[in-house]
Amino acid sequence: MKQPLILILAMSTNLLFATSSVAQEPISIIEAANITEPEKVALGKMLYFDPRLSKSGYISCNSCHNLATAGVDSLATSIGDQWQQGPINSPTVLNSRYNIAQFWDGRAKDLKEQAGGPIANPKEMGSTHSLAVTTIASIPEYQKLFADNFDNNAISIDTITDAIAAFEETLVTPNSPFDQYLMGNKQAISSNTINGYRLFKEVGCVGCHNGPAAGNNMYMKMGVVKTFVTTNPAIGRQALTGKAIDKNVFKVPTLRNIELTYPYFHDGSVWTLEEAVTIMADIQLGKKLSEKDTQDIVLFLQSLTGDQPQIVLPILPPSNKNTPKPTPFIL
Amino acid sequence: MKQPLILILAMSTNLLFATSSVAQEPISIIEAANITEPEKVALGKMLYFDPRLSKSGYISCNSCHNLATAGVDSLATSIGDQWQQGPINSPTVLNSRYNIAQFWDGRAKDLKEQAGGPIANPKEMGSTHSLAVTTIASIPEYQKLFADNFDNNAISIDTITDAIAAFEETLVTPNSPFDQYLMGNKQAISSNTINGYRLFKEVGCVGCHNGPAAGNNMYMKMGVVKTFVTTNPAIGRQALTGKAIDKNVFKVPTLRNIELTYPYFHDGSVWTLEEAVTIMADIQLGKKLSEKDTQDIVLFLQSLTGDQPQIVLPILPPSNKNTPKPTPFIL
Repeated sequence: MKQPLILILAMSTNLLFATSSVAQEPISIIEAANITEPEKVALGKMLYFDPRLSKSGYISCNSCHNLATAGVDSLATSIGDQWQQGPINSPTVLNSRYNIAQFWDGRAKDLKEQAGGPIANPKEMGSTHSLAVTTIASIPEYQKLFADNFDNNAISIDTITDAIAAFEETLVTPNSPFDQYLMGNKQAISSNTINGYRLFKEVGCVGCHNGPAAGNNMYMKMGVVKTFVTTNPAIGRQALTGKAIDKNVFKVPTLRNIELTYPYFHDGSVWTLEEAVTIMADIQLGKKLSEKDTQDIVLFLQSLTGDQPQIVLPILPPSNKNTPKPTPFIL
Repeated sequence: MKQPLILILAMSTNLLFATSSVAQEPISIIEAANITEPEKVALGKMLYFDPRLSKSGYISCNSCHNLATAGVDSLATSIGDQWQQGPINSPTVLNSRYNIAQFWDGRAKDLKEQAGGPIANPKEMGSTHSLAVTTIASIPEYQKLFADNFDNNAISIDTITDAIAAFEETLVTPNSPFDQYLMGNKQAISSNTINGYRLFKEVGCVGCHNGPAAGNNMYMKMGVVKTFVTTNPAIGRQALTGKAIDKNVFKVPTLRNIELTYPYFHDGSVWTLEEAVTIMADIQLGKKLSEKDTQDIVLFLQSLTGDQPQIVLPILPPSNKNTPKPTPFIL
């Protein structure tokens, strides 16, 4: 799925000239979730909220991708096992089904592969796949739910992450004011917001932030025109490819629900949309925006907040004498 | 509300002889929540789930009183700011409206007073009341909700904790198999379970564990007959009163949903109901139970699991440039 930078830039240029009618808008609407396997989704939701997937028994998927706060933790970088400081800003789980790949550097090809990462990361949930499987498999209610949902009945890291991914697939945010506008309701957003969208395309933001998620469908260097100054040590896709050209190349983040998913950038260093827009225009596009233009683009970005998933908190089945005990504190 | 030990024991003795009809059973049913102020309850739910009440922006009321796991964190002692180890086992928020007072030592007179404690405890949420108020008051959506719910419109620690308490008042668990039995459905629990209830009364457990919550309505020494061996430094109500007679005197915990609220005792040292029952019979009542009697009492305890509150996760309003930033890591 990875594309050379030069091809991405060519695509972006095409997109800039393909905005003459609704059908050709570079940002497309978010569809409502089409849930075909509700039992598997319900199981995945339980696992998503189950802190027993962590070594401490305290951290769940929802700890860093909190569905009360648009699928993020609203921190610059996340808190992991033993309160370790995470290396990078937690990306939102909302609309992640549209992602070209998962993590900022795209090192997981899909949601299922992603879900296994934090469980076994010593700086995140701090467990192992083996311990997570033993824990879940010790609980009769989970045994039944896995038997109901998987042909081979087996509780494994494969089936655990498959169920979590099935739940995450449903976490979409349709019906934003901007989507209503795209669908023909011209009163859904203000004239300043429409002007912000025009500027968003004209200035060039749309070159990277396009598709249903207004992002998350390509990789781009952070600092195309000017260097992005940060103390964060992440080097982007170079960590995967070893190639100098991939240094500081990250997945372009989604702008859906961006008003809710502060702080911004992979280092979480910026807390307001005004500042984020100003920096992006400067270091990615070499442009200095007026205060009014910046404000209108921010209005457009705010119009991308859609209906948040309504989540009924799952009731988790209890542990028993066969369940490995959590180890929150170093003895 | 505190009662001298001798009076408690006298009450307990009376209760032992007052179980001849349903109307006089020492454990009464849990009523469904009667929600008279739904808007205030909704606001309280938002605050209950809002991690911005903590210094780190990571810990909410729900972190230690997780409504996915029966209002507890399923850890021996809780994890606080900077991963500090808490001093005592997190008691369940479920049915806490029935509590004689709050905290293990009863130092808060009601849910409202309790709610302010962890926010400002350096070992728990690590914030201050002043910072919590400034944070919540910076958010326009909260401003409106407080104005809608409180006559003086003010966001203060008083109104914040009032709203949280209003939500917590609704967290009850009616309709347990045992309550169905009490209401006349003799098939709701098995004959072994009924025998367990008979033993529960006959052995003397009911002397302390009575009322709607099967506990939480009196104080009692932990270790009446034999010393309770623990490394936990808590001294119970002596910390409040300074009196030697109050050493190791704690609020009797509720047995409602006890199958879900492991680990047990104020030090969270015991993980199975069988062991908890055996220890209680030994050190509180000086009795050694047979394996069969212990198992029947456990069956009775398991019949106290009621309908868990169905919680739709609130969608929290975003912070803005006026909101104090979280400080999860020491700089």
